[in-house]
Amino acid sequence: MAITISKASSRKTYYEGRDGMRVPMRAVELTDGTTHVLYDTSGPYTDPSVTTDLRAGLPSLREAWIEARGDTHGRPRRAKPGANVTQMHYARRGEITREMEFVALREDAEPEFVRAEIARGRAILPSNINHPESEPMIIGRNFLVKINANIGNSAVTSSVEEEVEKMTWATRWGADTVMDLSTGKNIHETREWIVRNSCVPIGTVPIYQALEKVDGKAEELTWELYRDTLVEQAEQGVDYFTIHAGVLLRYVPLTAKRITGIVSRGGSILAKWCLAHHEENFLYTHFEEICEIMKAYDVAFSLGDGLRPGCTADANDEAQFAELETLGELTKIAWKHDVQTMIEGPGHIPMHLIKENVEKQLAICDEAPFYTLGPLVTDVAPGYDHITSAIGAAMIGWFGTAMLCYVTPKEHLGLPNKKDVKDGVIAYKIAAHAADLAKGHPRAHHWDDVLSKARFEFRWEDQFELSLDPETARDFHDETLPAPGAKVAHFCSMCGPHFCSMKITQEVREYARSGMAEKSKEFLEKGAEVYVPAE
Amino acid sequence: MAITISKASSRKTYYEGRDGMRVPMRAVELTDGTTHVLYDTSGPYTDPSVTTDLRAGLPSLREAWIEARGDTHGRPRRAKPGANVTQMHYARRGEITREMEFVALREDAEPEFVRAEIARGRAILPSNINHPESEPMIIGRNFLVKINANIGNSAVTSSVEEEVEKMTWATRWGADTVMDLSTGKNIHETREWIVRNSCVPIGTVPIYQALEKVDGKAEELTWELYRDTLVEQAEQGVDYFTIHAGVLLRYVPLTAKRITGIVSRGGSILAKWCLAHHEENFLYTHFEEICEIMKAYDVAFSLGDGLRPGCTADANDEAQFAELETLGELTKIAWKHDVQTMIEGPGHIPMHLIKENVEKQLAICDEAPFYTLGPLVTDVAPGYDHITSAIGAAMIGWFGTAMLCYVTPKEHLGLPNKKDVKDGVIAYKIAAHAADLAKGHPRAHHWDDVLSKARFEFRWEDQFELSLDPETARDFHDETLPAPGAKVAHFCSMCGPHFCSMKITQEVREYARSGMAEKSKEFLEKGAEVYVPAE
Repeated sequence: MAITISKASSRKTYYEGRDGMRVPMRAVELTDGTTHVLYDTSGPYTDPSVTTDLRAGLPSLREAWIEARGDTHGRPRRAKPGANVTQMHYARRGEITREMEFVALREDAEPEFVRAEIARGRAILPSNINHPESEPMIIGRNFLVKINANIGNSAVTSSVEEEVEKMTWATRWGADTVMDLSTGKNIHETREWIVRNSCVPIGTVPIYQALEKVDGKAEELTWELYRDTLVEQAEQGVDYFTIHAGVLLRYVPLTAKRITGIVSRGGSILAKWCLAHHEENFLYTHFEEICEIMKAYDVAFSLGDGLRPGCTADANDEAQFAELETLGELTKIAWKHDVQTMIEGPGHIPMHLIKENVEKQLAICDEAPFYTLGPLVTDVAPGYDHITSAIGAAMIGWFGTAMLCYVTPKEHLGLPNKKDVKDGVIAYKIAAHAADLAKGHPRAHHWDDVLSKARFEFRWEDQFELSLDPETARDFHDETLPAPGAKVAHFCSMCGPHFCSMKITQEVREYARSGMAEKSKEFLEKGAEVYVPAE
Repeated sequence: MAITISKASSRKTYYEGRDGMRVPMRAVELTDGTTHVLYDTSGPYTDPSVTTDLRAGLPSLREAWIEARGDTHGRPRRAKPGANVTQMHYARRGEITREMEFVALREDAEPEFVRAEIARGRAILPSNINHPESEPMIIGRNFLVKINANIGNSAVTSSVEEEVEKMTWATRWGADTVMDLSTGKNIHETREWIVRNSCVPIGTVPIYQALEKVDGKAEELTWELYRDTLVEQAEQGVDYFTIHAGVLLRYVPLTAKRITGIVSRGGSILAKWCLAHHEENFLYTHFEEICEIMKAYDVAFSLGDGLRPGCTADANDEAQFAELETLGELTKIAWKHDVQTMIEGPGHIPMHLIKENVEKQLAICDEAPFYTLGPLVTDVAPGYDHITSAIGAAMIGWFGTAMLCYVTPKEHLGLPNKKDVKDGVIAYKIAAHAADLAKGHPRAHHWDDVLSKARFEFRWEDQFELSLDPETARDFHDETLPAPGAKVAHFCSMCGPHFCSMKITQEVREYARSGMAEKSKEFLEKGAEVYVPAE
């Protein structure tokens, strides 16, 4: 007997906005006739009507919007003299940009609320004018929690093509931004390919490229060389820069008694520079000049936590919190220039010390968005740090972190391959969504409920298609029950037909519905095994 | 050039106690000449001096202790008339048993403290007199957080040999107890093999076997048939029984408006029985008779939460907390009989609702140990529920749960295979250890610190050997840097030699140690790249 399974499916869809604006979403068509719409970061790659070509790059979604504002010129594009082209600047002038409209549709929010949060500094909308390919997204704790995926080659391994492939793979599974942390050869070329083909904002740590230019000798770094690197990357279209301007000379000795010292690459490079010159960090002393560059391209600050702890024993120490005070000071300077700013956070923190990090950051940095790496809640599980850190990430997201930087299973051991990138992204989508749920986000709850209802009603295909990773869910089910009939069966391989609690519950529910008293006889007469479909 | 790597290694060791008592531990010999000792659940299987034979079963570690107490007789062993052979009974009489001595050595605790916690009901020491093969362990929130692994075949799949193999595999990676949840054919035989070969306590849900005896027809279950099943399993040596005595008739309608109704198999079976007969749950009405059986063998109660939520939307609802009140009432009855008791908890709970579960359980059940399944903090990630639930498990463990029941990646989709069992166990070892850290357990902190120090000092082999899964850590490292020289390299593939923050930090630290002022010249003269080993 052939069994026909009505198969759930998902497809690209668009929310329609004013003047032809189209915001990409994923529509999941369920077998009960309803449709569930999910946030979508995968870009034009998953729209069968769009032909993409890595050599040509993605279509310039925002080009016309940027052009229409009339405050930029040249190729690469740059602010006209005296102009400030940041989304924060527009927001503070009371303008709702097309980017903000896009974000409002994407997040089910009011455009005016989006504008107000950006103006207040409580959210950022990374959108370099030279990265018009990007689909606007927002990072702030009053919106969906976002995740970042790090990619990038090193001197030891990996090619440009691999990194571009990892980038599209990361966004396919849900990365909201991608950081290119390349440190090896071809930094400029790798980044060019990544930016031109990325539908999400791209972040970098410019000191890595600057260090390559001085052959890895930190003490030979200069402000001029660093400044030129910032301009080079801003012109390419990088949307946010990690800048370790809070690593002050006087803080370096505070790390001396730590078990793992300084574990941020940028932090250690700057500490070395400070000590070699016995001078203050040049990123700190030139901070206002950096702001001038940022506002000419709308590059956002990601103020780096160069002194973050590298093990649970070093968490929440004097060095870490001293730097945070400086990041708070720098936030106010950045805001004076209307430069969008977020603050990076740790790292490695045992669970009981996580909340203090968010509370301090919100207070010291006046609610600028927090962007944390994990944190890992223990150090004993190399090979599984996507899990140790997803625990901390979910908690810190609930407490108010706006974006979670993923950690892959290869952390501390090697560079992530494609599988590791996917494992890291999925673990962080779980953490971010769990945080949204705990914060009471109505859209987040609805997703859980639609999937749970499908599970209860044995709509297996709907359950798979609604999950974060439909392929894996389907494969795992089919491992034990591969027959097509199993997809409509009212049980699964875990318990078998006699023991399925959900099947029994449906009988119980039907029974309870028809009135509890005097009904046991009738129940028995019906055979007590008949499945009565829910009305 | 051949490079010789001094390799860290680990081996079985024993803490020596009074009168020849030997408590198994794992000693990790580090390349810096120190030894780190870890808790060990793997049993005689990892002691090369012991020959094991699945057909013969494990040596009877506790036989002589039980015999010496002189309060049992027969084969299978049973309490003499009028005797109560529970560890709680001995504890309340002021006796420190050999089992308590063993646990005290294993946990670095005072024997008197172990006794007092058991007497108070705040901890249990599962130890059926017919399972003398088990190595004593303790479940209570003032000790290390424990984890349980579920195994068991179903009507659909898997064999006896496979289940025994999964059991030894689970304890190899750190399972503190194992539950045999078999529901298919050969339940008795499967359990016999598992108990005879298990060095950890075994739990079961006796209603599953009872239901097999009535061909899956819940309404045909009787007290007599269930009672005989309890005795059969107690005689085999099962150490704790999940008993859903809190699923009362009047609570069943409270689940009617849930999205996923009743998801506990035992709970749904009993709900069906209650409705079919329109009578109160026979486990509740016969509870004191059950206590009489438990105390004749020292089987501990694991009072089942038959009405636990099956999705985040159903968490912390009226049905769940109504049942918890009844479990509190039953705890007091069990304690009246000196029967060791723990309380099962959910399930699926969004993060913000987790703490309430522990607070209520501790208050209502007078601090009896809590034993929770996860909880999963979201429903949208089938295929990754070891991660969604490790998040909740770590948190609930921190809040005071004494034992965490693992969830594998196959949850909701199929029966776990060996890989799934390992993935589930490792995820839960992470959660349990993270909880120990957050609770401030000194032994837990020390482990993190020893591994972090090895990481900082580039002792790669030490880092691998100290980790929860040395094989995976080593494999991941070797994927990118397989050459033996990389095991002593002062960098890894993530950043390459120029960018290694830990390497730079060691330079910085050396520099700072020699005094900060006037030292930049000397630092530059030394080349600024020389690695100076820590003193």
